[in-house]
Amino acid sequence: MVGKLYGVGLGPGDPELMTLRAHRLISEAKVVAYPTLAGGDSFARAIAADVIADRAREIVMDVPMSTAREPAQAAYDKGAAEIAAALEAGEDVVCLCEGDPFFYGSFMYLFARLSTRFEVEVVPGVTSITTCAARAGLPLAARNERLTVLPGPLPEDELRARIEGAESVVIMKVGRHMAKIRGVIDGLGLTSRAVYVERASLPQEVVCPLAEAPETAPYFSMILLTKGADPWL
Amino acid sequence: MVGKLYGVGLGPGDPELMTLRAHRLISEAKVVAYPTLAGGDSFARAIAADVIADRAREIVMDVPMSTAREPAQAAYDKGAAEIAAALEAGEDVVCLCEGDPFFYGSFMYLFARLSTRFEVEVVPGVTSITTCAARAGLPLAARNERLTVLPGPLPEDELRARIEGAESVVIMKVGRHMAKIRGVIDGLGLTSRAVYVERASLPQEVVCPLAEAPETAPYFSMILLTKGADPWL
Ligand SMILES: C[S@@+](CC[C@H](N)C(=O)[O-])C[C@H]1O[C@@H](n2cnc3c(N)ncnc32)[C@H](O)[C@@H]1O
Ligand SMILES: C[S@@+](CC[C@H](N)C(=O)[O-])C[C@H]1O[C@@H](n2cnc3c(N)ncnc32)[C@H](O)[C@@H]1O
Repeated sequence: MVGKLYGVGLGPGDPELMTLRAHRLISEAKVVAYPTLAGGDSFARAIAADVIADRAREIVMDVPMSTAREPAQAAYDKGAAEIAAALEAGEDVVCLCEGDPFFYGSFMYLFARLSTRFEVEVVPGVTSITTCAARAGLPLAARNERLTVLPGPLPEDELRARIEGAESVVIMKVGRHMAKIRGVIDGLGLTSRAVYVERASLPQEVVCPLAEAPETAPYFSMILLTKGADPWL
Repeated sequence: MVGKLYGVGLGPGDPELMTLRAHRLISEAKVVAYPTLAGGDSFARAIAADVIADRAREIVMDVPMSTAREPAQAAYDKGAAEIAAALEAGEDVVCLCEGDPFFYGSFMYLFARLSTRFEVEVVPGVTSITTCAARAGLPLAARNERLTVLPGPLPEDELRARIEGAESVVIMKVGRHMAKIRGVIDGLGLTSRAVYVERASLPQEVVCPLAEAPETAPYFSMILLTKGADPWL
């Protein structure tokens, strides 16, 4: 019997925002897997820490920090091979994913490598975008509104053009792109509408107007540009 | 002591995709509230059915079917007044929301009416978009890709323009707009890339290429136009 691979979303950080299904799969898992960046801690592992069984085996994929593709590609190749060996030995493997596995998540690299050869189930999780909206008290989209999600690393011109043509906007992966993003939003005269959210749902959470946000943002931060609730229909 | 209002996301349909926090709040709730459309059943109530305590009181807001704003507005006014009375009597109220409360959810109408007077906590939930992506085996967005969410009721011209300029696209609220949406996607030559998902995570789930989708779609359906996983970084 060949094992099954689960890509399990853990939600944005607060362990209580894990789904019942994620909780069950992780607590029963004999093998869990997750990536780490350049030997750092895994946020996904931290969210699931109290649920992982003491005797579970952990497959850690260490992804090096590099702008070139090949080193990361090789890390996922190696991780996929280790996971494949466990699956072939008849073990199920639960891959831990921050937020949702298919929403800007690295699980897709394992999915691409393994889903043609093995049974894979993706368990969706609460994403950072609706968590940030909840914590900021700002509905993301209503009725026939459009919602655009933009990654902060996009070039300045493209960010400007995409924000300008959009309605509700979420900007992910702010981090070291803060100054550039701020400049674009300021240039469009939208700063008064922008809200900054950092580490949503965690004890260190920050929610404030963009104008009051720190100059340098951590990786786990986001900017929301929404209209807020229209009290009618 | 005044009560607290919770807007609780229940996920896309499978009760196991509820968060631990949603499960706890609902099972402890003495008062739950939810809208119904024109006397029909509440999908949110159905997802939570096995968790709601037998003795919980239920505040049902019946929203009439109408293209005019006022009847729905009046229904939310009335529901908000009932909820306010419970909160003022010191009871907490748990409002049940399909998916996530702030992602195209009607909870925002109650939030707009009550959040200035009462303490409100929004508990995010798994949305239909990442659930549909998971069930279709299609990552929604990776790395620096943009993601656009469009409601199907948008006018044909606007849908066409927005899809054309976008990268990954999700079209919500397909329902009776199926023929129009299909025409737009066909006209753009994108049908072979489009996937149709109906009632994701439920026993009656349908996932198929758009070309094989039914002519008339139910309300709980969606179209994904994504590139799928790029196996590298
Ligand atoms: C690689 S993406 C992963 C997204 C994740 N899979 C999800 O579903 O939300 C990382 C980005 O998500 C956002 N993010 C994740 N968790 C967050 C949190 N708790 N608070 C604020 N932003 C968060 C940040 O913008 C961060 O740069
Ligand atoms: C009013 S919106 C509510 C969205 C919800 N709050 C969420 O977070 O997903 C209703 C639309 O969500 C989508 N939807 C909700 N549940 C779904 C499911 N289980 N399968 C497919 N689409 C679904 C459909 O496009 C439907 O028309």
